[in-house]
Amino acid sequence: MENQKLIASKARTPIEIVSVATRTPARARGRVPQGCRISDDCRVSVDDPETDVVVELTGNVPVGRELVLRALGNRKHVVTANKALLAHHGEEIMRRADEVKRCVLFEGAVAVSIPIVKTLRESAAANHVTAITGILNGTSNYVLSQMSDHDADFATALAEAQRRGYAEADPALDISGEDAAHKLALLASLAFGVPINLEAIDFEGIQGIDALDIAFAKRLGYRIKLIAQARKESDGLVAGVHPTFVPMTSMLSQVSSSMNGIAVQGDLMGSAFLYGSGAGGRQTASAVLADLIDLSNRYDFDFAGGAHNMGFRHGPRDAKDSRYRRDRFGACYLRLRIEDKAGVLAKVSKALADAGISVDELLQDGGQEGQTNLVVVTHDIGSGQLIEALPGLQAAAGLGHPAVVYPVLGDH
Amino acid sequence: MENQKLIASKARTPIEIVSVATRTPARARGRVPQGCRISDDCRVSVDDPETDVVVELTGNVPVGRELVLRALGNRKHVVTANKALLAHHGEEIMRRADEVKRCVLFEGAVAVSIPIVKTLRESAAANHVTAITGILNGTSNYVLSQMSDHDADFATALAEAQRRGYAEADPALDISGEDAAHKLALLASLAFGVPINLEAIDFEGIQGIDALDIAFAKRLGYRIKLIAQARKESDGLVAGVHPTFVPMTSMLSQVSSSMNGIAVQGDLMGSAFLYGSGAGGRQTASAVLADLIDLSNRYDFDFAGGAHNMGFRHGPRDAKDSRYRRDRFGACYLRLRIEDKAGVLAKVSKALADAGISVDELLQDGGQEGQTNLVVVTHDIGSGQLIEALPGLQAAAGLGHPAVVYPVLGDH
Repeated sequence: MENQKLIASKARTPIEIVSVATRTPARARGRVPQGCRISDDCRVSVDDPETDVVVELTGNVPVGRELVLRALGNRKHVVTANKALLAHHGEEIMRRADEVKRCVLFEGAVAVSIPIVKTLRESAAANHVTAITGILNGTSNYVLSQMSDHDADFATALAEAQRRGYAEADPALDISGEDAAHKLALLASLAFGVPINLEAIDFEGIQGIDALDIAFAKRLGYRIKLIAQARKESDGLVAGVHPTFVPMTSMLSQVSSSMNGIAVQGDLMGSAFLYGSGAGGRQTASAVLADLIDLSNRYDFDFAGGAHNMGFRHGPRDAKDSRYRRDRFGACYLRLRIEDKAGVLAKVSKALADAGISVDELLQDGGQEGQTNLVVVTHDIGSGQLIEALPGLQAAAGLGHPAVVYPVLGDH
Repeated sequence: MENQKLIASKARTPIEIVSVATRTPARARGRVPQGCRISDDCRVSVDDPETDVVVELTGNVPVGRELVLRALGNRKHVVTANKALLAHHGEEIMRRADEVKRCVLFEGAVAVSIPIVKTLRESAAANHVTAITGILNGTSNYVLSQMSDHDADFATALAEAQRRGYAEADPALDISGEDAAHKLALLASLAFGVPINLEAIDFEGIQGIDALDIAFAKRLGYRIKLIAQARKESDGLVAGVHPTFVPMTSMLSQVSSSMNGIAVQGDLMGSAFLYGSGAGGRQTASAVLADLIDLSNRYDFDFAGGAHNMGFRHGPRDAKDSRYRRDRFGACYLRLRIEDKAGVLAKVSKALADAGISVDELLQDGGQEGQTNLVVVTHDIGSGQLIEALPGLQAAAGLGHPAVVYPVLGDH
């Protein structure tokens, strides 16, 4: 209603809100256009023969699934911002949409102020995307920024995120990396033309991050960020969400507070980076309206051809293209708590050499009470190599503490 | 030819290169698909009844204009990367395209690896864009980065840019700010829904930048960048290209070497920032192919409705919306060469106070031979206020040197 005149000047077919379903109809009254029906039953909107497009903003997976499939069954286009729904049921939904020749658009589902869905589906269409690397969860990034820039501890930073409305009352989905994994599942599908496959994505959250490692990161020229990355290697895809050492020279390291940032690498376009808000009512409205205007301007309502909802044709494809690998690593950061006495460094160095791990940087901090921290940034290593090396390293360190290990973001 | 299979999987209508026109047909042979005609006369391609789309990559304004208008006259869609052509003749071309109901797409014309045309036209479609701020010329940015990061002088940095192929043999268009003005003219039209109006854009280049000001910028927490900005104020638009003090906290300040970066502000989406290569053959191919795939998928070849080539409808609109103002300023950096003796600072301070200019930061450097530099960063001032104040300030400085003045990038 706010930008009506502007929207009308952009849309070929007029866009009219004819029906709204909400749990709180009283709140909607007076806030919808004249003549718009209000109901507390989604099916009233979804079954309404006057509706061409259903906009799904429930944020709920089972409700969203029922609603979207019912809308498609009624041959309506769908615009949704429900990332969890698409991460879990995207394949079912997209195949159904293709069958009925309708669109499911979802720019609002990932990093709302960043046009990443359109960029991957349309702008990068002629590229073999080689990697997509993002900071996709604003709450986690806010917490990490507070810990890094203001020396806040985890609990204080999280409480502040909740106070500011960035985090949900139950922030588990944000903090655990699962929300970022939902988004990465969608982006990987768009980027690589493979089915949405949430199960293939390992995720790890920011709960256990020690202020000590944040401090070491700074000293070494990195920031710890919750990085969601999917990349193509010669023998398959690698995708995961992990707290990661990001070089301060990288644009991703500059993404602070609750902002999101996404780097895309393609074989023609090279590297691009996009940055913006990851959440917010107005920002989500902007993305949803862009999808609606797109529908009004550019999609044939009858869909002569394939729908290409994910920017590629579904159907049989080379199995290699959609195989996810889990045995990849790159450079990594290792912190060992060691005895502060002569000979320990030599033992650790020998354990590293025995495992064939070559060292890029090494740092030992002051230490107290007979203990100190030995920090190693390695060159590229395999995850098998790392797993094999850890017991020997921990034995050499002599204190029985497990090693702290984080990946270091490379030039993928 | 390289990514044929991929492109075919994205395009609804097969894309086939049927005719190529080049000044060097011999070089094209063996590098085009079988059956593709090669000629040294553009008109052979443009008049070919088999061609649906003409891709114009001449980089020449009069040749490009003739070619594009002729293609539209033949009812062909056009994809072009010719920013100078569109900056000078875009209105004529877009009106012609609307008349014949054909598309003129031009993602490759501005910051090739950044999908800024699509972002403004489609992703931000529901927004009143309030400002667009960019580093749009890679050569200038390379030169400034070399001067700032490696203490190179202007001539050395420019020679290095030429050696690396960033700058043309005659780099005047880059260095003068004119190339950035061409691009800004297109972006302002897309962002604000106004006619392309190159004449409304003031531009100033980087030729005269003194290493001293680059050093002062660093000390004050800024980088000098060639900033192209168009913003909407209550009584009109302001657009210009100027060397500008950019706070190091801004994403734009992180754009180094020959890269491009563009910040977009909209009333719904808030701030977004996009970053990528501004030039390169493969990068341009990526943008041109994205436009071709878009044509194949989404535009009706017969154009039932309006073409919306610039993302808005041409036609009568509120004159206020397209009025450009030139009397705007904001915060600014002022450097005065002053006599290094008691009383001068007081005189300059009085001149500033008399002009109603309030000071944000003030810095005086060591000085030698009885002279020193007085640097002032002001709060927001009007350009009239500044012009009025300069004679008094220069008189107070006492040495007859003109003041060095640069705008400081604000939160527009």
